[in-house]
Amino acid sequence: MNFLEERIIKDGIVKEGNVLKVDSFLNHQMDISLFEQMGEEFKRRFSDKPINKILTIEASGIGIACVVAKYFNVPVVFAKKSKSINIEGEMYIAEVESFTHKCKNQVIVSKKFLNSDDKVLIIDDFLANGCALQGLISIVNEAGGTVEGIGIAIEKGFQSGGRIIRNLGYQLESLAIVESMDAANGTIQFREQ
Amino acid sequence: MNFLEERIIKDGIVKEGNVLKVDSFLNHQMDISLFEQMGEEFKRRFSDKPINKILTIEASGIGIACVVAKYFNVPVVFAKKSKSINIEGEMYIAEVESFTHKCKNQVIVSKKFLNSDDKVLIIDDFLANGCALQGLISIVNEAGGTVEGIGIAIEKGFQSGGRIIRNLGYQLESLAIVESMDAANGTIQFREQ
Repeated sequence: MNFLEERIIKDGIVKEGNVLKVDSFLNHQMDISLFEQMGEEFKRRFSDKPINKILTIEASGIGIACVVAKYFNVPVVFAKKSKSINIEGEMYIAEVESFTHKCKNQVIVSKKFLNSDDKVLIIDDFLANGCALQGLISIVNEAGGTVEGIGIAIEKGFQSGGRIIRNLGYQLESLAIVESMDAANGTIQFREQ
Repeated sequence: MNFLEERIIKDGIVKEGNVLKVDSFLNHQMDISLFEQMGEEFKRRFSDKPINKILTIEASGIGIACVVAKYFNVPVVFAKKSKSINIEGEMYIAEVESFTHKCKNQVIVSKKFLNSDDKVLIIDDFLANGCALQGLISIVNEAGGTVEGIGIAIEKGFQSGGRIIRNLGYQLESLAIVESMDAANGTIQFREQ
């Protein structure tokens, strides 16, 4: 097991309905030392890619992306989920459906911050059905940029998002891929990588 | 002028209605090197405080908080603005009014991640009327913790938030305090610190 799988076993909580709670270290309270380990590991896995920007989505992707960005020495852009009066001018907009919130959101990035020169690493905390990720990829493509890679903390391997993205030919690196979980006894099986 | 004031002069854009757009480096695209300078400076200003946790609020506070946290070697907790099905159990809830979104939000933190032992540094990107900040302070107090300090990137000194918080006796450190802005010619005056 790698460092993230070990942490999930130690502090993650399996709930009914295939819910994995990691809010004590990943997406409500955040362990910055863990995020630094993730940054080192993503840098290793994407070492051959000419990445000049990291793209993530609010809210829980932002912290990971900002710590990971230090290892690539690039700026971070985060997509917003609804239109703020503080975003103005031309925007890229993609429709996505959220698994956790059970509603449709717009994913929005100002056209000022993505263009055809951009070689983008997409970072997010979770990948399940992959709708948010599809929205981010759509926006990079619309900008004429290149998705150089996708770095995810935890993928739910029993949902379709990861398979679809890999089928599309993207280099998707998930630090932990959960194959199955059992809420009755709290066990988690990870995919061998 | 300090490093942040210089950056605001260089890349900030003054808009009608006392709007200062800093989305190219602070709250949409994010310059991680700048955030590291902010972390160093906050560490200097709060060097005598026994801080064991950083508290911020989604979404644009998260990136700054996570980079700043490295300088304090503490975890970050971010408050959520609406109830997610992924937050469960007991929660601290405060009502706040947002200046930019012109609506009321709930500020929510799980009770698991704030308690009476916590010595908290609150971090956020902007301080204007201070409603979000008041909600965060309220939550720390409800938890029985201590607000050791408040670190803000940009304070709008012509709005009341900063004065109220300082009147209440908190150590509020804003790296740039805008005294006035003029959209007609794009000038910005900072308060001498």
